[in-house]
Amino acid sequence: MLLDNIYSPIASDLVRVEAMVRAVSRPDFSWLPQEQATGIQGDGGLVRLLSHSLINGGKRIRPALTLLSGKFHDYQLECLLPMAVAIEIMHTATLVHDDAIDKSAVRRGRPTINTVWDDEKAVLLGDYLFAKAGELVTRTGSIRAIRLLHQTLMVISTGEINQSFNAFNLKQTRQHYLWRISSKTASLFSLSTESGAILSEAPEASIEVLREYGYNLGVAFQIVDDILDFVGTEAELGKPVGSDLAQGTLTLPAMLLLERYPEDNPVREWFQYRSDRGLMGRAIELVRNSPIVDECYALAADYCSRACRDLNRLPDHASRQSLKDLADYVVARRR
Amino acid sequence: MLLDNIYSPIASDLVRVEAMVRAVSRPDFSWLPQEQATGIQGDGGLVRLLSHSLINGGKRIRPALTLLSGKFHDYQLECLLPMAVAIEIMHTATLVHDDAIDKSAVRRGRPTINTVWDDEKAVLLGDYLFAKAGELVTRTGSIRAIRLLHQTLMVISTGEINQSFNAFNLKQTRQHYLWRISSKTASLFSLSTESGAILSEAPEASIEVLREYGYNLGVAFQIVDDILDFVGTEAELGKPVGSDLAQGTLTLPAMLLLERYPEDNPVREWFQYRSDRGLMGRAIELVRNSPIVDECYALAADYCSRACRDLNRLPDHASRQSLKDLADYVVARRR
Repeated sequence: MLLDNIYSPIASDLVRVEAMVRAVSRPDFSWLPQEQATGIQGDGGLVRLLSHSLINGGKRIRPALTLLSGKFHDYQLECLLPMAVAIEIMHTATLVHDDAIDKSAVRRGRPTINTVWDDEKAVLLGDYLFAKAGELVTRTGSIRAIRLLHQTLMVISTGEINQSFNAFNLKQTRQHYLWRISSKTASLFSLSTESGAILSEAPEASIEVLREYGYNLGVAFQIVDDILDFVGTEAELGKPVGSDLAQGTLTLPAMLLLERYPEDNPVREWFQYRSDRGLMGRAIELVRNSPIVDECYALAADYCSRACRDLNRLPDHASRQSLKDLADYVVARRR
Repeated sequence: MLLDNIYSPIASDLVRVEAMVRAVSRPDFSWLPQEQATGIQGDGGLVRLLSHSLINGGKRIRPALTLLSGKFHDYQLECLLPMAVAIEIMHTATLVHDDAIDKSAVRRGRPTINTVWDDEKAVLLGDYLFAKAGELVTRTGSIRAIRLLHQTLMVISTGEINQSFNAFNLKQTRQHYLWRISSKTASLFSLSTESGAILSEAPEASIEVLREYGYNLGVAFQIVDDILDFVGTEAELGKPVGSDLAQGTLTLPAMLLLERYPEDNPVREWFQYRSDRGLMGRAIELVRNSPIVDECYALAADYCSRACRDLNRLPDHASRQSLKDLADYVVARRR
């Protein structure tokens, strides 16, 4: 199923999301005294960084989730819109920082900020985008939604810190993996759905159903991401295959490969000595030609089932079918 | 005058600020479902980073400004406290990122996060601290104060981006310099005072007086910081002398030196060729042995006068004298 079809209940409002994201790349400091506002515009460095990072924005799954989740009760676009955009901007900020940290050269088929400029610009642009997300979310007027956004960023950063401390660590269990992806990915998906529910004044039971949906969908999304890092092509991924192995991030397919070949294993050898980069290619080949991929997909599908389990408790609305279809899409996607 | 004396109207509450800052280094994810909360604690990497960055915390001028500014109307500690701590944590986050960007090895006499660990940990810790500041400020319950905090971070980041795009650029005027320091320093000082006023439900006229005070004090503070980078000692500064020149940041003393010796000038030569690091020592010597230092101090004192100009419009309170004394302290300080 095409994303456009899945998004049909919110199609016109997603156009407004895009417009609002584009507006972020035209920074405006009109709340400052005139003199300061003029000075801070500087020579347009910020604008160039923003334009580069905000065009070609990906699938917009997170803002779509916020809008779809807002459809079951009192759909208040004037709150949902800044929430959805704040989440997308916060997501962009984390990607900009990740790319600098990982020294990634390409993202979504385009050179990264740290490649076109340098790490310094990437760190500072990310900081600006975090701040902008924080400013946008105040427009919801909901302290609860604002707090949730910042708590989520605390969780994401902590997940990334745990990942960083465990780079090239072979002694990680599936439990560690699930904790890590729930922090770094599922938390943002559940923020997207939960905030949509909160801002549409859904009863607590509906908020919980949508939170759980987002969380489980996010876990499935990340498992699939980690599979695609092994089985995708560079054209599909918009970045090199095997990035996780290169960073020393032990994802589920690599873990299952270690379980299957505990001794002579290219992942083990690569993590231990980090000398022969050809080992990564061998690991990718081994995973592709094993039942590991199917096993990982089965787990992703399992999380998608969990995601959809309680959706029928929500009021009847076209959005409900969209959320179910999105769960299928997340597993079937190739990029 | 000692800071302790200046802080006397708020001494007991600053103790609570310290306690709340220390509490930040014991992260708590109790809002998450039990399972996730356990997993995210991980192996304590975050706690180690937090402890390292939050002890030995400096002068706490910004939280003191928030508390002092709250004294003129309805002093509500339960709002002022999280605001003050949020500002201090946000300030810490910017320092952690700055150190990574500048590859600084020492801050406040201790090795930086990027030195003890690496740039990756510094970027992620800074992100966590920004998020924590955003969470703390929601406890004020004031959308206006929350928005102001995030707008300020937008301004700070933009100032840093402008600075980064202008590293080693000799074609900068005093106006550029003032714009830059007003973005990167004065904005946070004015956030401190303005938010204290807002949260004590001060009338708009008082908010404006305190905002102006903070802004001008911040400009003076940064001018003095930039002087000390030339005339201080490493023991006083807690970091190497001449850091700004090393980063290619053109501060006021260096600008005045360029005006005084337009042709044969070690700053010009260092910025143009960046080969002979001895040029920085020569620039420092030239500045120290010229009237430039006095000229810079005169400008700082001028901003301090502007800061205090309208303080008498505020209600009579011991805090008013503290703010005046703090302006004297900012110019007289050696660290």
